[in-house]
Amino acid sequence: MYSPMIESLIEQFAQFPGVGRKSAERMAFYVLDLMSEADCQHFADVVLETKKSVAFCEVCQNLTDVSPCPICASSRRDKSVICVVEQPKDVSAIEKTGGYNGLYHVLHGAISPIDDITPDDIRIKELLLRLANGTVTEVIMATNPTVNGTATAVYIQKLLKPFGIKVTRIAHGIPVGADLEYADEMTLSKALEGRTEMN
Amino acid sequence: MYSPMIESLIEQFAQFPGVGRKSAERMAFYVLDLMSEADCQHFADVVLETKKSVAFCEVCQNLTDVSPCPICASSRRDKSVICVVEQPKDVSAIEKTGGYNGLYHVLHGAISPIDDITPDDIRIKELLLRLANGTVTEVIMATNPTVNGTATAVYIQKLLKPFGIKVTRIAHGIPVGADLEYADEMTLSKALEGRTEMN
Repeated sequence: MYSPMIESLIEQFAQFPGVGRKSAERMAFYVLDLMSEADCQHFADVVLETKKSVAFCEVCQNLTDVSPCPICASSRRDKSVICVVEQPKDVSAIEKTGGYNGLYHVLHGAISPIDDITPDDIRIKELLLRLANGTVTEVIMATNPTVNGTATAVYIQKLLKPFGIKVTRIAHGIPVGADLEYADEMTLSKALEGRTEMN
Repeated sequence: MYSPMIESLIEQFAQFPGVGRKSAERMAFYVLDLMSEADCQHFADVVLETKKSVAFCEVCQNLTDVSPCPICASSRRDKSVICVVEQPKDVSAIEKTGGYNGLYHVLHGAISPIDDITPDDIRIKELLLRLANGTVTEVIMATNPTVNGTATAVYIQKLLKPFGIKVTRIAHGIPVGADLEYADEMTLSKALEGRTEMN
């Protein structure tokens, strides 16, 4: 329906996760109709510059433009705890809580036999290297509570057994503010299993 | 939560219509984590090239990389009818039906006193110029059935009176496949008003 040139712009936007055909059209028309040429140039510059400058932190594998990243380099973080997550955005989610002061390790995925993602495809090796010097006493597995996330947590827990390091898993249960009635059975049984004494 | 550089990339994506903070984060991480540098370069090139090449058709004001656009230049289109729409994507929506063979005119907006959009801010002047040579016998007002769209249609209809051209409005009624029970009163009364004889 559109000229090949406009079509190619729509396709570029449609490649992003969560962007369907309609959203991609809206974004393309925003570029063509409402952005100035200077805005477009700035947009392209930011994409290219950020892509060039941002790489993986040599320690925690999070995305950063300085390596080691500010969290790994900070002297105020507790270096005896590592929280293992699947994605960089999980780090941001945990940081927003303000309740965690340890370090992180980003796996960049989870083991998934169906998608042909093996332990070698995610950054487990890099995690093991960080444990060698004996500073770390606890590893918190904060992978998603999905089949793949849980399998990855269990796999890493088994790997870490010889290190003698405490491996913990984030709690599963009823979200705060949610209604028991609408919780699924799996969550509810996990919530019962993980009950804690009230003080 | 993110480094200033990653934050600026997220903000760039968040400027697009329909893209919230979470979606912008996903798109930024897609760029940083999954796209290659070549992919990013290609993406930036397409945005800039398309922006540079695509302009408004000198006749219908639709977005195009050749002017006049393929629809205006086509010898197989009925040049006696012009369908007036608000946005380029409306042209695409009507073209998809395959049921219209006339020309278009894109206003790039609708009159909206609240947003300070006056008749001079949308391309009404360009429409009047097209009617001067007498080829056009009907103008179809296909602006949205909103307050602004309807006001624009009425405004243009009054402007065109001296030209002696037939001005029509697209039908409002119950969408095909919808349920009468769930139609709002305004749509239902428009559907009754616009009833046609069954043959």
